[in-house]
Amino acid sequence: MKEFDLIVKNGLIATESDEYYADIGISDGKIVQIGTDLNNAADVIDAAGMLVIPGGIDIHTHIDAPLHGTHTLDDWYQGTVSAAFGGVTCVVDYPMQEIGHSLRDIVNKWSDKARDKAIIDYSFSPVITERTEDVYKEIPQLIKEGFPSFKIFMAYSYRAHDEEIIRLLDLISSNGGILGIHCENDWAIGYLASKLVKEGKVETKYHPVSRPPVAEADATSRVIRLAEMVDAQVLIVHLSCEEALQEAAKAREKGSKVYVETCTHFLKLDKELYDQPVEEAAKYVITPPLREHKDREALWNGLKTGAISIVSSDHCAYPMSEKLRLGKGDFTKMPHGAPGIETRLPVVFSEGVSKGRISLQRFVSAVSTNPARLAGLYPRKGTLAVGSDADITIIDPNKKVRLATETMHSNCDFSPFEGYITDGYPVITIAGGRVIVKDGNLNAKPGAGKLVKRDLFKPF
Amino acid sequence: MKEFDLIVKNGLIATESDEYYADIGISDGKIVQIGTDLNNAADVIDAAGMLVIPGGIDIHTHIDAPLHGTHTLDDWYQGTVSAAFGGVTCVVDYPMQEIGHSLRDIVNKWSDKARDKAIIDYSFSPVITERTEDVYKEIPQLIKEGFPSFKIFMAYSYRAHDEEIIRLLDLISSNGGILGIHCENDWAIGYLASKLVKEGKVETKYHPVSRPPVAEADATSRVIRLAEMVDAQVLIVHLSCEEALQEAAKAREKGSKVYVETCTHFLKLDKELYDQPVEEAAKYVITPPLREHKDREALWNGLKTGAISIVSSDHCAYPMSEKLRLGKGDFTKMPHGAPGIETRLPVVFSEGVSKGRISLQRFVSAVSTNPARLAGLYPRKGTLAVGSDADITIIDPNKKVRLATETMHSNCDFSPFEGYITDGYPVITIAGGRVIVKDGNLNAKPGAGKLVKRDLFKPF
Amino acid sequence: MKEFDLIVKNGLIATESDEYYADIGISDGKIVQIGTDLNNAADVIDAAGMLVIPGGIDIHTHIDAPLHGTHTLDDWYQGTVSAAFGGVTCVVDYPMQEIGHSLRDIVNKWSDKARDKAIIDYSFSPVITERTEDVYKEIPQLIKEGFPSFKIFMAYSYRAHDEEIIRLLDLISSNGGILGIHCENDWAIGYLASKLVKEGKVETKYHPVSRPPVAEADATSRVIRLAEMVDAQVLIVHLSCEEALQEAAKAREKGSKVYVETCTHFLKLDKELYDQPVEEAAKYVITPPLREHKDREALWNGLKTGAISIVSSDHCAYPMSEKLRLGKGDFTKMPHGAPGIETRLPVVFSEGVSKGRISLQRFVSAVSTNPARLAGLYPRKGTLAVGSDADITIIDPNKKVRLATETMHSNCDFSPFEGYITDGYPVITIAGGRVIVKDGNLNAKPGAGKLVKRDLFKPF
Amino acid sequence: MKEFDLIVKNGLIATESDEYYADIGISDGKIVQIGTDLNNAADVIDAAGMLVIPGGIDIHTHIDAPLHGTHTLDDWYQGTVSAAFGGVTCVVDYPMQEIGHSLRDIVNKWSDKARDKAIIDYSFSPVITERTEDVYKEIPQLIKEGFPSFKIFMAYSYRAHDEEIIRLLDLISSNGGILGIHCENDWAIGYLASKLVKEGKVETKYHPVSRPPVAEADATSRVIRLAEMVDAQVLIVHLSCEEALQEAAKAREKGSKVYVETCTHFLKLDKELYDQPVEEAAKYVITPPLREHKDREALWNGLKTGAISIVSSDHCAYPMSEKLRLGKGDFTKMPHGAPGIETRLPVVFSEGVSKGRISLQRFVSAVSTNPARLAGLYPRKGTLAVGSDADITIIDPNKKVRLATETMHSNCDFSPFEGYITDGYPVITIAGGRVIVKDGNLNAKPGAGKLVKRDLFKPF
Repeated sequence: MKEFDLIVKNGLIATESDEYYADIGISDGKIVQIGTDLNNAADVIDAAGMLVIPGGIDIHTHIDAPLHGTHTLDDWYQGTVSAAFGGVTCVVDYPMQEIGHSLRDIVNKWSDKARDKAIIDYSFSPVITERTEDVYKEIPQLIKEGFPSFKIFMAYSYRAHDEEIIRLLDLISSNGGILGIHCENDWAIGYLASKLVKEGKVETKYHPVSRPPVAEADATSRVIRLAEMVDAQVLIVHLSCEEALQEAAKAREKGSKVYVETCTHFLKLDKELYDQPVEEAAKYVITPPLREHKDREALWNGLKTGAISIVSSDHCAYPMSEKLRLGKGDFTKMPHGAPGIETRLPVVFSEGVSKGRISLQRFVSAVSTNPARLAGLYPRKGTLAVGSDADITIIDPNKKVRLATETMHSNCDFSPFEGYITDGYPVITIAGGRVIVKDGNLNAKPGAGKLVKRDLFKPF
Repeated sequence: MKEFDLIVKNGLIATESDEYYADIGISDGKIVQIGTDLNNAADVIDAAGMLVIPGGIDIHTHIDAPLHGTHTLDDWYQGTVSAAFGGVTCVVDYPMQEIGHSLRDIVNKWSDKARDKAIIDYSFSPVITERTEDVYKEIPQLIKEGFPSFKIFMAYSYRAHDEEIIRLLDLISSNGGILGIHCENDWAIGYLASKLVKEGKVETKYHPVSRPPVAEADATSRVIRLAEMVDAQVLIVHLSCEEALQEAAKAREKGSKVYVETCTHFLKLDKELYDQPVEEAAKYVITPPLREHKDREALWNGLKTGAISIVSSDHCAYPMSEKLRLGKGDFTKMPHGAPGIETRLPVVFSEGVSKGRISLQRFVSAVSTNPARLAGLYPRKGTLAVGSDADITIIDPNKKVRLATETMHSNCDFSPFEGYITDGYPVITIAGGRVIVKDGNLNAKPGAGKLVKRDLFKPF
Repeated sequence: MKEFDLIVKNGLIATESDEYYADIGISDGKIVQIGTDLNNAADVIDAAGMLVIPGGIDIHTHIDAPLHGTHTLDDWYQGTVSAAFGGVTCVVDYPMQEIGHSLRDIVNKWSDKARDKAIIDYSFSPVITERTEDVYKEIPQLIKEGFPSFKIFMAYSYRAHDEEIIRLLDLISSNGGILGIHCENDWAIGYLASKLVKEGKVETKYHPVSRPPVAEADATSRVIRLAEMVDAQVLIVHLSCEEALQEAAKAREKGSKVYVETCTHFLKLDKELYDQPVEEAAKYVITPPLREHKDREALWNGLKTGAISIVSSDHCAYPMSEKLRLGKGDFTKMPHGAPGIETRLPVVFSEGVSKGRISLQRFVSAVSTNPARLAGLYPRKGTLAVGSDADITIIDPNKKVRLATETMHSNCDFSPFEGYITDGYPVITIAGGRVIVKDGNLNAKPGAGKLVKRDLFKPF
Repeated sequence: MKEFDLIVKNGLIATESDEYYADIGISDGKIVQIGTDLNNAADVIDAAGMLVIPGGIDIHTHIDAPLHGTHTLDDWYQGTVSAAFGGVTCVVDYPMQEIGHSLRDIVNKWSDKARDKAIIDYSFSPVITERTEDVYKEIPQLIKEGFPSFKIFMAYSYRAHDEEIIRLLDLISSNGGILGIHCENDWAIGYLASKLVKEGKVETKYHPVSRPPVAEADATSRVIRLAEMVDAQVLIVHLSCEEALQEAAKAREKGSKVYVETCTHFLKLDKELYDQPVEEAAKYVITPPLREHKDREALWNGLKTGAISIVSSDHCAYPMSEKLRLGKGDFTKMPHGAPGIETRLPVVFSEGVSKGRISLQRFVSAVSTNPARLAGLYPRKGTLAVGSDADITIIDPNKKVRLATETMHSNCDFSPFEGYITDGYPVITIAGGRVIVKDGNLNAKPGAGKLVKRDLFKPF
């Protein structure tokens, strides 16, 4: 009998802290050995010249989701195929609680959607859209059952008020979970947007004008302070600008348990893109909106210092036709979102590691290790260590790929990164010891991915 | 015929900027001459050895007000008599809009209350408790008619939401007025307070625990940012703590049009006072609550640098019996407020000027000149210059007075400054050229004070 | 006999705090009366439509000074004539202690220079270039005799080391004086400059590169902290940039006794001016160098909030021929300085008051009242109050003047403000009750100005 | 033949990022395999119930050093034995350049001292005491030869001036090295100390008074800005207080390449200890001095966020007799230093990990991984990865040890941690695959440690 099911040989293994040449021996979906000259395996992958990192983990996606009067395009098969081609081996999605339903209902519904389709492991962080007493009651049990993370919005009709926010922070945190919050002062944004509309300023270029950095910084600062009042941990999701980052960094230096997520697009794209015709500008209509060059520089530096813990995709694959149908004549009506699950690792690696902005270690930390920590998946996932799941992404550090909607695997019909040429690309994806993507070919059964029971949040 | 109706002779005249010996000649209620050796007057006051300053102006009072399920004790006669004995020559009160009524209604109602009673000049800054479309509509006209200042609360049942706040800031500011805001995150405080009550922590000492500085700093920061979004001026009323002050000072240094008010009690009293039996502790149950020593130091320094513009009294003369009846068994039920219109000048002078914390100029600025500016009363009031109203307060800079409820003139039956021994006290008060208080005697006709039409706010 | 020697009638009197219409009665060089309808004077000036402010005070000049291997052009007659035409009625100059000589020697030498020439009042703040034990000893006595202000440099060969700085701060402050400090880290600048020169980068445009804002901010921060260690007051002279201002503002908000001076040129001119041919660029070679637009905005805001107390000229009238002779081929050799005593009030008024950046009150404060306070001249000078010196400047608030070297009165042969068109200009200057400039005509005897004995510094 | 020389079995392996159960296989002094159920070794250590971490690295020591008029007690045998018992497997010492000698001279001298004595690996970071042109010239070559780190002092007679500091920062950084700097404004401290002495304040309790936090913050801020001017990396050594930390954290968030070291004693001891009789207080006379409780809290938080990279010992084993002989009657004369190489891991683990202040990962990072990075030793040392040196420390996480001078292994006759009871202690130390300490027994040959050639500094 073979000692290993699979060996990954000769690669440069990179984790959040390390970087060394060794072979990885895998059995029963787990890493069982790391050493020099491993042999005796059923299958061998030669990773010479390649980087071997823990599989990417994306904890901010909206797969198969009815949102903003339309519906995202990918189901759990196509969404996870797109993920796998982007070097992602685990997804934690944000399903939205439905009106009149419980959080458990939405978790069940999403489980049903994903069960026979997902090709990689997954879980869900329910978005709490109705703060009823029943919801407060079911949260501790959901945490115990393996769903320690939740999300609320300070924007949109289902936005939460301060009293709900502080209560949820206190409840979730004291039960070992963590709350993610979309931080924008939507009340102020509503006023600014309606003022613009009244003045006839309805073109897409007014989207960022209606949602200024100060509105995000205000909400970020408020959330941090609410968390401080009840000594809770909190995750600021998709932080986009320097002013908000300064609030978070300052609070962290004082000892607050604030964690920050940014997204791929905020690290690469600037708000000048909105000054194009709506057909092009619509690709970038997301919230918070794209910001300025100085904000991008601040975000990269935050990744370097650790003020920012993770980079997620906020994958939200609306059809362009719907974006235009709803929002062409009025920016306030356009659905906010864009696909990104497949482009995250290539773009962050190219812009971050290849351009020398962050180390390979910080890259691994931002796209895998820290997402695993924030989701309660660590150390089962997010690292390459004996005993961990054999979720492995192999990156060709010099591979140039021109990103194009047609050659990527989401059903979405556009990409904000269309035409971007990478400098480094994931070429092999191993999930639970199965080689699911190799040399551009998919080898995965729908339903092979499993719902992962997650642990309590552990501060880091 | 005499050249002057009244001459104030030989005093040290102190204004916001100056300090010099001269005589002041008064005719028809106005200052008409300042010079050496003025003579030929119907009446002469010898102010040798005294300080002659512009009359105190208190722009934060709650006179004859139904509030928190009870009613403040002073009517407009007794309230203004108490003011006059405290060296105050003008009051701008905060009447609260009544349910289902307009702002104009409350202005009219308050005008009726004051007309035949007030012994000094007065005006009103309506508190907007209902943000209806009708209210938004009447504001520009009220500003034009001489009511350029308003107030809203972020606390209590009539608290305003962010969208209302930003809309009011924009509306009032663009029409030349200024909005004062009570900044506490009441949603968060509600949660903290109810948690305390659930735990049986109902004693008065939990009052400050339920309203921590961070809740005030959060609301202050939010208001500043909302004002920045629409380029509005704003007045932070009764700021109490260092953390909130830092937010305001930082914003000012960046160019925001933020003005800060603090109150007498925050400059002298510490939160240890709440650790006494409720009968004593109740005297200090106000909002925001008393803070720590370091906060007081920060406030004094803010007065010195100008980060804080004014000191008001927040005079709110609840009967002690009512405070105890409602709140003895549960701190969350106790009406928030204490008298202070008569103690403001003596205490701020004694603690500030006599103890060397602030200059005489900054004192005058904080209790008279800047209140006049913020209320649109300047330069008619708030200074001693040719052409200004002859509102003059004469202070004996060394007079020791032991403050006592029974010897003061409010109807209120307690004072948070009971037993305090002053070092300096106002001994003569002249309002519109009339000597209304002298040597402890009152010489004033009810109704002698007039409603002053105020000007638009002018940034300073 | 006439009651007054002179009456200034009908003008709008503006002080640091006030703005009102009245007449000013002057006798024996002093203001004796301010009132309505003054009459009975030997002479009357009609100031209808004009602004009547306290005479400008310039406490940062280098008149008749040997410096940097050359000599400034104006003697005390021409220098004070230029001042008078610029609305300045008092100068406190910075004479530099000579090698091997005492501070008293330089004070005496400067007194001799000025005595028979100055047409306005004056005093001196000795620059301490040699920190000998004898110098430390003579300082307390000089303060007592009316010279409470001194200056040291952290730049140039006579730069002071930290131990000297802290000792001087402690000594001068504890004796009631105040030390002004030129704050640039000259050690670092020396390294940067020599590196540039080694790389052949000797053109004038490298002047600001060699003296970056961070070098000024570092020195400013250091001086503030040295002052804090011994609880001393300190004046940061000619502060030029936002980063240094933030250090000072932050320290002030914490309670440090830091006062800040900026100069006219930093409020109007940007560093792009250095990118011109040397003959033009040389006009702007001063230290610290001109900065960027954002710095100017910060300085204006600092003036508004009070973080900056005063605007001085740093008048240093080198001949252009000398600037070019010494520094044409190497920016590090060019003498640093430019004239400005005559352009200060017109430019600051036009840019500040006429453009709405600061109020008229803050203007008066910055060019007259606060300079008087910092120099120990207040309240004798720096205000318009009964008992003060009749030093008065009358400004035509709408007068357009195209600034030109040939029509101004310094001997200097260039001006950094050449061609600037004012919006407001001083038209009458009254010094000690004497009308010395009126309608472009001079009426002053050399030596009419006097050495003023100054008082101890009083914190404000 | 055995596959491995040594296997460490069953322990919980902890690195900077990971924590997992596995066995470590070691051959030829290197880690060659990490996996489950390793067998076939010449020697096996059972680490069940233990933590297995990369060996401690101490990059701030003064072994066998003539300093401050006396001499530290440990030679390279006793010093490294003490290290080994404290779980340390590599030391980078700070030898001081001797007057008139080169840096190479001191490196050679120290190599000679250590060669036949050290039982663990070592290297040296020369302290530059004379900034001659020859020294500037030899630095690039020393970096190439494996000595990429240096140190200078801003205190003591050999303190460096700003121009020397910026030149060294630029030179060392551009050649791939890193400069460590002792940051205190010694010029200011000299003034404060001499003032205290003049006032007769010579007791040990005045030691911290003479060296206030502001003097450290000033020097820290200055060094950071000097580094920014030439875009250099810099290491702030033994940072002790919140104010200095804030400067460093702020600069890091702006993108500056600043790294911070603190020391064991600053994390545990407060300045009240100086208020004891000199015989006891002398144990704590170090520089910077011990600070307050709030500073300790700030340092722990800085370790958590990464604002502080490492904890070193600043081991400086003066005889107590000498400390008292020189400094008993005058605190300014007492040699500054205390032993700490053996107590660092136990105390930081007990206070940090056992008390829940920092995670096990941050502990490993602070005492091993980041020291390795800063010294150019990583990834050869500082982690447990295939290919790394088999430098391993095994910690019993619950072991209580009462620290006592007599049972520790330095020659020093006192310890600032005398009597401290640990909660966790290193019980086995493996250096280069050799088990040198086990169960309290030493098994090491003098000279078994080697001088390690170090790599260029790589930002992290």
